[in-house]
Amino acid sequence: MYKLREIDAGVCASEGFFADGVSAGLKSNNELDMAFIYSQKECEITSVFTTNKMTAAPIRHFLSKGNFKTNFVLINAKNANAMTGKVGIQDIEEILETCKNVINPVMSSTGVIGVRLPKEKIKAGIKLFNTNAKNPSNAAKAIMTTDGFSKQKAYKVELDDGSSFNIGAMAKGAGMINPAMATMLCFITTDADVSKNEMQAILDEAVKKTFNAASVDGDTSTNDTVMLLSNALSGAYEKEAFKEALEKIMLFLAREMVRDGEGATKLVTYKVKGAKNDKEAEIVAKALSNSLLVKTALYGEDPNWGRIASTVGASGVEADEETLSISFDELCVYDKGRLLFDNAKEEKASKVMQKSLFTISCDLGIADGSFTSFGCDLGYEYIKINADYRT
Amino acid sequence: MYKLREIDAGVCASEGFFADGVSAGLKSNNELDMAFIYSQKECEITSVFTTNKMTAAPIRHFLSKGNFKTNFVLINAKNANAMTGKVGIQDIEEILETCKNVINPVMSSTGVIGVRLPKEKIKAGIKLFNTNAKNPSNAAKAIMTTDGFSKQKAYKVELDDGSSFNIGAMAKGAGMINPAMATMLCFITTDADVSKNEMQAILDEAVKKTFNAASVDGDTSTNDTVMLLSNALSGAYEKEAFKEALEKIMLFLAREMVRDGEGATKLVTYKVKGAKNDKEAEIVAKALSNSLLVKTALYGEDPNWGRIASTVGASGVEADEETLSISFDELCVYDKGRLLFDNAKEEKASKVMQKSLFTISCDLGIADGSFTSFGCDLGYEYIKINADYRT
Repeated sequence: MYKLREIDAGVCASEGFFADGVSAGLKSNNELDMAFIYSQKECEITSVFTTNKMTAAPIRHFLSKGNFKTNFVLINAKNANAMTGKVGIQDIEEILETCKNVINPVMSSTGVIGVRLPKEKIKAGIKLFNTNAKNPSNAAKAIMTTDGFSKQKAYKVELDDGSSFNIGAMAKGAGMINPAMATMLCFITTDADVSKNEMQAILDEAVKKTFNAASVDGDTSTNDTVMLLSNALSGAYEKEAFKEALEKIMLFLAREMVRDGEGATKLVTYKVKGAKNDKEAEIVAKALSNSLLVKTALYGEDPNWGRIASTVGASGVEADEETLSISFDELCVYDKGRLLFDNAKEEKASKVMQKSLFTISCDLGIADGSFTSFGCDLGYEYIKINADYRT
Repeated sequence: MYKLREIDAGVCASEGFFADGVSAGLKSNNELDMAFIYSQKECEITSVFTTNKMTAAPIRHFLSKGNFKTNFVLINAKNANAMTGKVGIQDIEEILETCKNVINPVMSSTGVIGVRLPKEKIKAGIKLFNTNAKNPSNAAKAIMTTDGFSKQKAYKVELDDGSSFNIGAMAKGAGMINPAMATMLCFITTDADVSKNEMQAILDEAVKKTFNAASVDGDTSTNDTVMLLSNALSGAYEKEAFKEALEKIMLFLAREMVRDGEGATKLVTYKVKGAKNDKEAEIVAKALSNSLLVKTALYGEDPNWGRIASTVGASGVEADEETLSISFDELCVYDKGRLLFDNAKEEKASKVMQKSLFTISCDLGIADGSFTSFGCDLGYEYIKINADYRT
């Protein structure tokens, strides 16, 4: 047995980790725009990256280094260093050379695609870093782009033998969040004494159920990154406890990202069951969270269950109107070919949809496949933000 | 050789075809809401239907009849008769029994999902039909739902030997138009003397290049239908001429549907070439026309080519930033790893994007696969229309 205790320390929750954000003039108005994470002891590092073929330079640079340990991660906002070819990699190398007294520094970027990094500003920003600082909130703020609020979460995990370890994280998300990863960055630090292989396997599994089940707009970015660093300084570890704490943190951050989706006013969970298999359930759950017609109906608080049914049918999986049922929270609105929807139901369903947080369940009634995704509505604000993001 | 001459006669362009629209009180304000097409001679009928598994009752009813000839098609707006199960089929049978003096009448529906047809209103509407009427424009208006304008096109095809035949069509589209068919209905009539098998093969091929290359919002409806009726009354036929005229009509209607997409202000053609094969080119072309980030950039007239590149990369096909190039009309904005985009280019690119009609070309630089799709932008009006469509 073990106990999870939430602590308010973000990526500095674990022993020996330091972090801060500085303003290097990448954003306007002296906003924080560069962050670092530093560990006094070198860390095992595991990661999950975007599946986009136009992989941004920082990811290609990371992957080209093979197996390595590090104790320093540098993150900049406003420029993704994507579609920048070989010079994009050279720019990273030149920048990282200026990071003194650290081991194998790693760079991560988010922002506009197709523009070279402002190297001199970034190098000047690095000089402002104080690796003795413990300001995780500043780091979380610095990595924001169109995010409306910063995102952090941390747990102390107390084991039965009296030992304990910590896991803490920060993330940025907002638009472009999609079931196959998104312009989302997430950095997780831990002092658990976990092996690299086990850490990678647990991380891969957790990403599937959390960030890959989240959708804002169905687009997948060039820069998506989840990194997990462990310096093992606690000397403690217990697999199930580590797994649960990590998944809880990642699920919280993934849901926060969707809740903060560009223009989003609602966070909706899509519980799909009864599909032919888990894969088909996943296809349906993601189709629902990505459907423009479903998302606009959510925004309009219109209990238009026909669009849900149509999206299930259009997703390409095995489905039949005679076995399908649909519920809004506990309220069944369509049941295996029976049209239940009258004025009284509609009134109740509208009440559910007025909530900022609710669940749409689809039972396909075929076999045992299940998957849960989450998404947001699509309103005017999304258009406003995205019609001219670059300016 | 042959000559195509455009004629202003919609589905009444061909000999022996009659059509009209009536108001049966399904829409408000006495708007036209029911249409019929009648042929004095029975017709071969070929069709392409939605791939949505929640196939609407009219389509299931049609398919259950096997091979048959008809001379009467009845279409209603405002109610899709979808998700209505067995009673949906019974309602159609009851309605069609009231159609006197016609052969194997066919019904087609568009509108809200999950509500039973207002049978009595529809039966009363049928009594208003005058099968001697030639009012194709009324028929085209009656089938509209959220369409901003009605859509018709017809050609007289003049062959070298002095003989001629006609093809005419009407369609409704607007929202929910997607590469794998959409809530779009299209009815085509011809007096060409074409065999059923040849007509079906030509129709299938034409659908791929036209309606299935069109996208408004990436959703696929329960009711999508393309029907082609031939009464052979002209006695004339020539395959290549028929094929060209049919494809021209369908391409025109598909493009009109996208141009009239809910809230659309631009019609954009996506020309993809250089892909590994035609299938991969199609995946990219459709990913571009469906991407929310691309569509909102179009609306904002923001020449954000990075989103194009990112969407290509996210589509899952073989792609590489070192071989990719991107153009807006003739203006190359990214060329095989070289960042060409400066202020002068941006100004020119912005000018292209201000047009209501332009082309975005992507050459993947890998092999010879190509495909052309078309789509529209996504603006505030789409949200307004879809946030509360049912009311």
